[in-house]
Amino acid sequence: MVVGLEHLPELLPVAGVKLGTVAAGIRYRDRLDLAVIEAIEGSTCAAVFTRNAFCAAPVVVARRHLAKNSPRLLLINAGNANAGTGAQGIMDAEACCTTLAELAGVAPRAVLPFSTGVIGEPLPVPLVRGALPQAWEARSSTGWEEAARAIMTTDTVPKGLSVSFTCQGHPVTVTGIAKGSGMIRPDMATMLVFLATDAQVPQEVLQLCLTKAVAESFNRITVDGDTSTNDACVLLATGKSGVSIRAAEDSDFAALQQAVSEVCLHLAQAIIRDGEGATKFIAVKVAGGGNIQECEQVAYAIAQSPLVKTACFASDPNWGRILAAIGRSGVPDLEITGVSLYLSEVGVVDKGIPHPDYTEEQGRAVMERDEITIGVELGRGDSCAQIWTCDLSFDYVKINAEYRS
Amino acid sequence: MVVGLEHLPELLPVAGVKLGTVAAGIRYRDRLDLAVIEAIEGSTCAAVFTRNAFCAAPVVVARRHLAKNSPRLLLINAGNANAGTGAQGIMDAEACCTTLAELAGVAPRAVLPFSTGVIGEPLPVPLVRGALPQAWEARSSTGWEEAARAIMTTDTVPKGLSVSFTCQGHPVTVTGIAKGSGMIRPDMATMLVFLATDAQVPQEVLQLCLTKAVAESFNRITVDGDTSTNDACVLLATGKSGVSIRAAEDSDFAALQQAVSEVCLHLAQAIIRDGEGATKFIAVKVAGGGNIQECEQVAYAIAQSPLVKTACFASDPNWGRILAAIGRSGVPDLEITGVSLYLSEVGVVDKGIPHPDYTEEQGRAVMERDEITIGVELGRGDSCAQIWTCDLSFDYVKINAEYRS
Repeated sequence: MVVGLEHLPELLPVAGVKLGTVAAGIRYRDRLDLAVIEAIEGSTCAAVFTRNAFCAAPVVVARRHLAKNSPRLLLINAGNANAGTGAQGIMDAEACCTTLAELAGVAPRAVLPFSTGVIGEPLPVPLVRGALPQAWEARSSTGWEEAARAIMTTDTVPKGLSVSFTCQGHPVTVTGIAKGSGMIRPDMATMLVFLATDAQVPQEVLQLCLTKAVAESFNRITVDGDTSTNDACVLLATGKSGVSIRAAEDSDFAALQQAVSEVCLHLAQAIIRDGEGATKFIAVKVAGGGNIQECEQVAYAIAQSPLVKTACFASDPNWGRILAAIGRSGVPDLEITGVSLYLSEVGVVDKGIPHPDYTEEQGRAVMERDEITIGVELGRGDSCAQIWTCDLSFDYVKINAEYRS
Repeated sequence: MVVGLEHLPELLPVAGVKLGTVAAGIRYRDRLDLAVIEAIEGSTCAAVFTRNAFCAAPVVVARRHLAKNSPRLLLINAGNANAGTGAQGIMDAEACCTTLAELAGVAPRAVLPFSTGVIGEPLPVPLVRGALPQAWEARSSTGWEEAARAIMTTDTVPKGLSVSFTCQGHPVTVTGIAKGSGMIRPDMATMLVFLATDAQVPQEVLQLCLTKAVAESFNRITVDGDTSTNDACVLLATGKSGVSIRAAEDSDFAALQQAVSEVCLHLAQAIIRDGEGATKFIAVKVAGGGNIQECEQVAYAIAQSPLVKTACFASDPNWGRILAAIGRSGVPDLEITGVSLYLSEVGVVDKGIPHPDYTEEQGRAVMERDEITIGVELGRGDSCAQIWTCDLSFDYVKINAEYRS
């Protein structure tokens, strides 16, 4: 079930970016599973990768290539994560990069590889290499939607968004696509996100922009607390719009940041809305903290509590579980007498005790909605943080307990 | 379902301890739900309480009373946690202590209160006070099994163990009972543990003994990562065996420690075996760590991963999920090339890559057992740690999603 993601919005071309897809038969039959994204020469690239210590072979190779120069090509396959595959996995990823580089007439290090799918099985290199010429031929500036579909594993819907704004008298576009549905799906590793803009942005400035956007979007979501071995988010800037943003201090940078942040937030929330077995979209909003870290700590303790998540699934306004999660979040010297709790607009706990006007019926009415906000006021300061999660349903267990077949 | 806990072992009386139980009708019909444990004058008492910042009223009161003198009486009710009840909850807990103190002819501060059950509802003080005379009259040295039943909430079986050893030519007994089934059951808060020995032990020495035993048992289990507002573990020492253990350096202390640790470990594992929806009992054993903390970190990352837990439920030897959990555990500079993984006796991953002899059939055969060991070798040092958990099943979601009725 998908919560509030009825259709894919129109994805606008980004001048200087072409995308080609193909059904390579890596794991799935009769569906797109390989995508190539080409950025014109002179483009810059920012990237953020998984913090998992055991990153997959393509992440190792992508990091290496990125350190050497600015990439021109992204090569993404679904169906096989090329993770837990040791030295062979690295060679396999490199081999695929080399094939694409030959087609494009660039150095292999100009290609960044990305894989998502089953962990611990060797990448079927001949299938990937054999399919690349067709993907290369198929590339087009309108290929975003097909690419959004090609990178899906067990996502139930494709995910993408475009945002445009005017800058220096020219239109600037930011388009992004993402896949992910649980930090790791049955054993389909990975959240992958690919963004591009036609603004011209130096690499360091682009990286600042992406890092900030990711911090407030992809780093603020949780389905089950697991981080994949393959997570990656890439932002390309082609410069083809004629708009140049030279430094983070430029007034135009704020407009770019806003657009990139908006696309990232939409995609991050889309991953939650399509979360494994999700029937509810839950925002956890913690205010009144002494600092942002303690607000995040409390928010994650709530969002990752299986007891809170199952209560949401059951539409049960079980505020005792939320209070217990706050209490064990590890915030030092937390006093219950300062803590208030809301379920969307309904006050439930007021400074540590049940709100005098609260009724179970009010709480239940809120919890029966598709979208719920759990609001916490800590009464310790002015900081706040918000994260997003989904409920824990029978289908989560079903999806994750199904055998890999 | 309970994994490997067919019957309650015989619970031996502890000289100097009497237990009385009664059906007070606090929440359940026609079952014992109130217990009184009396220790003779001169007994010492050690206790460990929840680390949740929002501890329940009885925990606040018990801590206060314990600071003032050595308690003589424990008063335990099931069905209502007296948590999230503010100042009224404190007064209610005190009122119940006062009634029992009057019956026993002791000061109210000689009574420690414990509650387990629904959070956020006022304690039905008249029911508790009204039932106390009957519980007091009923007390007997053979009341351990009835008390083990009276403190249950949604546990499916009573939990207890006795261990005896000979010391200074006399038999010494340690008997303990516990309740708990998930750190918090639907909204039945709490793990409660009550132990007694007839050795004579000074309070500070007794506390050392209990703290060590708890660290290696109750602090090494997890069902769902949640810590309740009411968790408590108490050890009484009556001295009636004629055996006196004066200091932790005494050779006899080791024998007592061993007995107390054995009872605690049995009870802790019994809680996991009766975990919410548990169909498997899982030991997670991490060796080769640079220190114990990093071994624990890795063990908890595995044991609390919903993906690992659902794989166990499905008997799926999905080692990619285990590897991913290790990788995100936060151990600094962890190298996958040092990490090996075992499912019970079967080698699965050898220094970061699939073990050459491993087959999926071997893995599946292990995972289909009721009891599984997930073994990890980090290849960084000589430290090790072991914790215990259970799988994540449909019934976990069912139990926790059921409405409080």
